[in-house]
Amino acid sequence: MGLLENIHSPADVRALPPEALGQLCQEIRDFLIGSLSEHGGHLASNLGSVELTVALHRVYDTGRDRLVFDVGHQCYTHKLLTGRQDFSTFREIGGLAGFPRPYESVHDAFVAGHASNSVSVALGMARARTARGEDYDVAALIGDGALNGGMAFEGLSDAGHSGEPLVVILNDNGMSINEGVGGLADMLGRMRTRVEYIQFKKWYRTSLIPYVPRLSSVLSRAKRWLKERIIPENVFDDFGFEYIGPIDGHDVRKVENALRWAKEYRAPVLVHVITQKGKGFPPAEKAPEAFHGVGAFDAKSGVPRYTGEDFSSVFGRTLTELAGEDRSVVAITAAMKEGTGLIGFQEAWPDRFFDVGIAEEHACAMAAGMAAQGLKPVFAVYSTFLQRSYDMLIHDVALMGLHVVFGVDRAGIVGRDGETHQGAFDVAYLSSVPGMKIYAPASFAELRTMLRRAVLEDTGPVAVRYPRGGEGSWRDDASGQAARVVKSGKDVTIAVYGTETGEALLAARMLYGKGVDAEVLKINTICPLDPEPALDSARRTGALLVAEEACAAGCVGGRLLAAAEQAGICLRAARLINLGDGVLEHGDPAQLRRKMKLDSGSLCQAVLEMLHGKDET
Amino acid sequence: MGLLENIHSPADVRALPPEALGQLCQEIRDFLIGSLSEHGGHLASNLGSVELTVALHRVYDTGRDRLVFDVGHQCYTHKLLTGRQDFSTFREIGGLAGFPRPYESVHDAFVAGHASNSVSVALGMARARTARGEDYDVAALIGDGALNGGMAFEGLSDAGHSGEPLVVILNDNGMSINEGVGGLADMLGRMRTRVEYIQFKKWYRTSLIPYVPRLSSVLSRAKRWLKERIIPENVFDDFGFEYIGPIDGHDVRKVENALRWAKEYRAPVLVHVITQKGKGFPPAEKAPEAFHGVGAFDAKSGVPRYTGEDFSSVFGRTLTELAGEDRSVVAITAAMKEGTGLIGFQEAWPDRFFDVGIAEEHACAMAAGMAAQGLKPVFAVYSTFLQRSYDMLIHDVALMGLHVVFGVDRAGIVGRDGETHQGAFDVAYLSSVPGMKIYAPASFAELRTMLRRAVLEDTGPVAVRYPRGGEGSWRDDASGQAARVVKSGKDVTIAVYGTETGEALLAARMLYGKGVDAEVLKINTICPLDPEPALDSARRTGALLVAEEACAAGCVGGRLLAAAEQAGICLRAARLINLGDGVLEHGDPAQLRRKMKLDSGSLCQAVLEMLHGKDET
Repeated sequence: MGLLENIHSPADVRALPPEALGQLCQEIRDFLIGSLSEHGGHLASNLGSVELTVALHRVYDTGRDRLVFDVGHQCYTHKLLTGRQDFSTFREIGGLAGFPRPYESVHDAFVAGHASNSVSVALGMARARTARGEDYDVAALIGDGALNGGMAFEGLSDAGHSGEPLVVILNDNGMSINEGVGGLADMLGRMRTRVEYIQFKKWYRTSLIPYVPRLSSVLSRAKRWLKERIIPENVFDDFGFEYIGPIDGHDVRKVENALRWAKEYRAPVLVHVITQKGKGFPPAEKAPEAFHGVGAFDAKSGVPRYTGEDFSSVFGRTLTELAGEDRSVVAITAAMKEGTGLIGFQEAWPDRFFDVGIAEEHACAMAAGMAAQGLKPVFAVYSTFLQRSYDMLIHDVALMGLHVVFGVDRAGIVGRDGETHQGAFDVAYLSSVPGMKIYAPASFAELRTMLRRAVLEDTGPVAVRYPRGGEGSWRDDASGQAARVVKSGKDVTIAVYGTETGEALLAARMLYGKGVDAEVLKINTICPLDPEPALDSARRTGALLVAEEACAAGCVGGRLLAAAEQAGICLRAARLINLGDGVLEHGDPAQLRRKMKLDSGSLCQAVLEMLHGKDET
Repeated sequence: MGLLENIHSPADVRALPPEALGQLCQEIRDFLIGSLSEHGGHLASNLGSVELTVALHRVYDTGRDRLVFDVGHQCYTHKLLTGRQDFSTFREIGGLAGFPRPYESVHDAFVAGHASNSVSVALGMARARTARGEDYDVAALIGDGALNGGMAFEGLSDAGHSGEPLVVILNDNGMSINEGVGGLADMLGRMRTRVEYIQFKKWYRTSLIPYVPRLSSVLSRAKRWLKERIIPENVFDDFGFEYIGPIDGHDVRKVENALRWAKEYRAPVLVHVITQKGKGFPPAEKAPEAFHGVGAFDAKSGVPRYTGEDFSSVFGRTLTELAGEDRSVVAITAAMKEGTGLIGFQEAWPDRFFDVGIAEEHACAMAAGMAAQGLKPVFAVYSTFLQRSYDMLIHDVALMGLHVVFGVDRAGIVGRDGETHQGAFDVAYLSSVPGMKIYAPASFAELRTMLRRAVLEDTGPVAVRYPRGGEGSWRDDASGQAARVVKSGKDVTIAVYGTETGEALLAARMLYGKGVDAEVLKINTICPLDPEPALDSARRTGALLVAEEACAAGCVGGRLLAAAEQAGICLRAARLINLGDGVLEHGDPAQLRRKMKLDSGSLCQAVLEMLHGKDET
């Protein structure tokens, strides 16, 4: 009988004898490979952190202590050990989330999904504990990729200086999401264990100082002299952390010992743990990037069950072509070259490809510097991660009207990765950036046309926003004007953009069967928004429905209705359907679309309600 | 006869004999003190960087080389040396800006105003230069305060690794904007010159390697051994920079030599320059913080000509009171304790006051961690700097609905600091944050009431947005409801919030004299926005004007008109007046208000045009 199925809470992990831990870890690995081959998910990073997570639960009581995950895609073992072993509806609506979720379990201390925030959050928690005179431990678990993000440094600088007891566990698999980039990765590679020094320091701190207070300043000077002359500093020492490492992250007992020591040190400690991404699954050990975030795959060979063209790959291929035509085109990614489809670009134009690591702020400001000096930079980035660059979009790009192009991937409903990854906000925040132009392609063909225009013809900041995955039912290219009627009708106007176009056309067909002749207006340029085509149509039909994959605040529909009111157009019915003011959870994208009433059936229903009132539908 | 008046371009600076530089620096200081005592501005940091700037212009040709200022408030000497000595309309509309402005001079390489972007921008420029095969030098000038910002680390990590020839000049006055905070400041304090080592390295790099290629790997190993055993690393070495310093920043020749060496090294170099803020003006040397950003003052004593109550001081005093009533209230600032009025709070509650340095991302995520564990954190921050935290507002605060309060200072027209400082975007970006509540007090009394409600009564994220400076003509407290009619009328509804309320009431008075009976609706809670009070009023009057100090995208007026259209209200006239889609330059706030048609006279005029058409006004 297996050990894992009898682990109902972390107390059961702590109760296991040390010699049983190897078997537990093996069972966890088998579970992960089997389950993710069915459901997809973040395989490689979870395989790499099995022993580390088991050790964490032997040292910390996560029901009371606060363990803050950074990014959080490496939380699967944590879920398995905290009473969540039913992965049958993993990442479905109502099922287990793929990231930590405080609503799901008391063992999930904080939301995770974006990178580099964990030290800041943990410091806030540690300060709250101290201010309120409470007694629990706080730890942050951060990968080397997330450590590259500037906020992690802000957090480390403040935390080290604060003296607050807290432990930062650096899970270093030596590659960030891609291979290590930047000076930080070089630096981590140079670090070496310095156990004797650490032991001396602990002894002198805990044994001598409390009893011989006057010795303190003498010893402090001696210590500084020693450190400066003999022992190379690293940046963590510099920031006031006690550094311990590197520790072999696949040796549970070593990790457990280091964590226990760190927890008891009662000061800021950084524990540097070395792990191997994909550990224990040969296909993932060989190509960890291919197994970062995966769909379903064959549990033996690792071969993915589905590979097809998607907006990201079309983006990457098109950009590679454009770079062949114009030598000033360069591509930038923030540790997402696979996800954004830029592998081919890197191979074709290695000198014009820049992976800056998880550093969206830097990526955006650097792009602005490039544009100021005559390059045509294209920053490919997920909608939700570009939120990080909001200030740089305004300050560094827009104030000088620089021609930086943003390939805004994963815009709209993203699906299984859940609320931290939905691309709900880009329409709102990009529209507020002075001079920003936003294109919303609805098909691969339109993405090609619009990206070409954005890169080679436009000036100033331009964003091209496209969804995760493949096309909807719309496959044409109607991108010639700012907006175009793609089906004429006389009873109601349905205005849409992006892949919602296909849903609107399907809805129009359904409506035709119910005696309603709907006009579908496809908007191509959503910012600056020319309201005239929509107003023209709405004047004729007298009713306007605007459906979009964007949050309600700052949505295109709101701008169109405001324009209608200013133009003195009195519609007999107006309705907005969008992602609302709330938070959109994880789940199958098609199901989420239905939930948000953005599928064709819901659009049809909404039009009938608009035109005839609720009762007649 | 003075030297300064004969400096028409940097070439004139380079032509001066070294022995004349002392006199030039003295003349610059006299000019700065005299001019700023009239016009106000950033005195202390400019007095501290006189010699450094003179040295920069002797080494770099800023007409061709690219010098990127970080924050840029220390650019006055640079302006004086680049043909801009007419400070008579300094920081007025059409006059010289207080920050670098590429539209103003070819010598201003890039926009500046926000912190920590300069290394990223400079790296982008250096990469553009290399990619385009051009030949100019790139340097970034960054203060120790701005270095604390995470983006600076992202930039240093990438730049050091890139090997691109570029020079980062660290202007270290040992205090950030306030006294040094965080581990970084500690670290800078420990750095020491290592001139011999640098010379050895340069010799071996430039003399040996090119001629004896095989020696390289042996020497490289020797170098590493040497560095690891003998010479303490610092974080700049770690990131791949050649570090040189510290240099006495008030010795022009030493700085000039260091810069020349760095420029010729053809690799990433960091030059660490030590300067004294306020240098040469005793009142500012004694209290540099008081002379960070100043209004007019007495040129001898330094005594400010005007001190009065403003929204920031009312905020700080109220928060200090609230902290006395509730022990869980804590205050957070990102290096702006003076500007946000928190000095008194720090004195009263030092253990509950957290200055994290220039690190708005960290501040926001840390506040979220505090709120998750039972504190009531209040982050006091300028509207334009909170842009940095946009992602953390959504990800760290909103997804868990945490009760973090934001004191959003400098919201709306800020004035003389210009386009990088106007608080034009917070209404748009805060409104898109799920669950965010936004209060817009119009008077000191309302700020007190609303802040109390936000901190002690509300749950979830709450922002209180208030302007720079003092009250307008509205001094009452009408904050009891989400919105309130403060003057009833029958011909037109003027909906406003914040200090625009006073302008609207004045306009209504003017309109009364012209036979128009205007209703003024004052909105207190602008998000979530209850449109009913405005729609009620507009239904009665049939005409709606919404005036606000916010950018057009996502503005309150747009939301109200969209709601009117959805409610089937056919207004005979509707108009929005706001800060528009563009960029608002520097100038006197009252003049900017008139320019944007937000003053009472313009509102009156706008109503007349709405109601009677243009010709009848």
